[in-house]
Amino acid sequence: MHGYEGSRDELLARLRRIEGQVRGLQRMIDEDRYCIDVLTQISSATRALQGVAVNMLDDHVRHCVRDAIEQGPTAADERIDEALDVIHRLIRN
Amino acid sequence: MHGYEGSRDELLARLRRIEGQVRGLQRMIDEDRYCIDVLTQISSATRALQGVAVNMLDDHVRHCVRDAIEQGPTAADERIDEALDVIHRLIRN
Amino acid sequence: MHGYEGSRDELLARLRRIEGQVRGLQRMIDEDRYCIDVLTQISSATRALQGVAVNMLDDHVRHCVRDAIEQGPTAADERIDEALDVIHRLIRN
Amino acid sequence: MHGYEGSRDELLARLRRIEGQVRGLQRMIDEDRYCIDVLTQISSATRALQGVAVNMLDDHVRHCVRDAIEQGPTAADERIDEALDVIHRLIRN
Repeated sequence: MHGYEGSRDELLARLRRIEGQVRGLQRMIDEDRYCIDVLTQISSATRALQGVAVNMLDDHVRHCVRDAIEQGPTAADERIDEALDVIHRLIRN
Repeated sequence: MHGYEGSRDELLARLRRIEGQVRGLQRMIDEDRYCIDVLTQISSATRALQGVAVNMLDDHVRHCVRDAIEQGPTAADERIDEALDVIHRLIRN
Repeated sequence: MHGYEGSRDELLARLRRIEGQVRGLQRMIDEDRYCIDVLTQISSATRALQGVAVNMLDDHVRHCVRDAIEQGPTAADERIDEALDVIHRLIRN
Repeated sequence: MHGYEGSRDELLARLRRIEGQVRGLQRMIDEDRYCIDVLTQISSATRALQGVAVNMLDDHVRHCVRDAIEQGPTAADERIDEALDVIHRLIRN
């Protein structure tokens, strides 16, 4: 059981929409669309992906990290380290 | 003719790869993979999309914006405004 | 007692260095230095500030959030909410 | 003469305010303020610095890069390269 159990359907729907945006980007380039329009669409897909990351991270901290801390120090250390590691990557992205 | 004319094939190949990553993300969620692994993959797809944006922006400035400036002030003003606008969005993303 | 107790001196030293960088930026503008050099320095000061934020966040999660979770659900909920809130702001920055 | 000539006073005022924020951060740590409050203030100073960068970049592109392109290909190439270089750094920051 993972943190995203409760939001699985919504996550999948959002990722399908992002997949559609990335396919749309290929079509725009095939159709020779203006750079600025393509860039606007890339920026929107990027933001949508970051939105999925932020929601997933929230679920993870609220469930998985919290459970691990309640289970005791050993499980906690590992979970906290890997959560902070992924948070660093998202901040630097 | 757009700024990305010369890198069209490479852009399409990168976008197809990103589309595959986004489909892979849906599979990971279907298979109940661990949140941190999904987040790592989202972070990598986001970075790949930003890479495409950066390359496309470079082509746009080197070709479209430059051509507009060489054609005279009216075309230039408009092109510079819209380029800065998209650059702001990429910085804030 | 806060999460940053153990790294207080290092945090202060880094913030003094950043303060020096921001004063240096004003001097550069007074001396009419080239935009690109000023921008490079701004980018470096921004990155230094983000570095301080990342370290402080780590200390906060490893100590304050963890302690709150170990103390029980009520304290935990509040701490987790406010930590995620600040993480969102750092990701969007 | 640089791109920021016309906004020098405003830039200096904003940098003085940011310098004050960074000094305020040191005071907060000296006074043992709560991590989340310090992090909120760091996030605000970071955003203010990025705002200065964005304005300075705009002035630079509208004046320096544009002038260089109007002066001919050799000056243009160099200016465009260095502007894109700094834009990449701001996007990745």
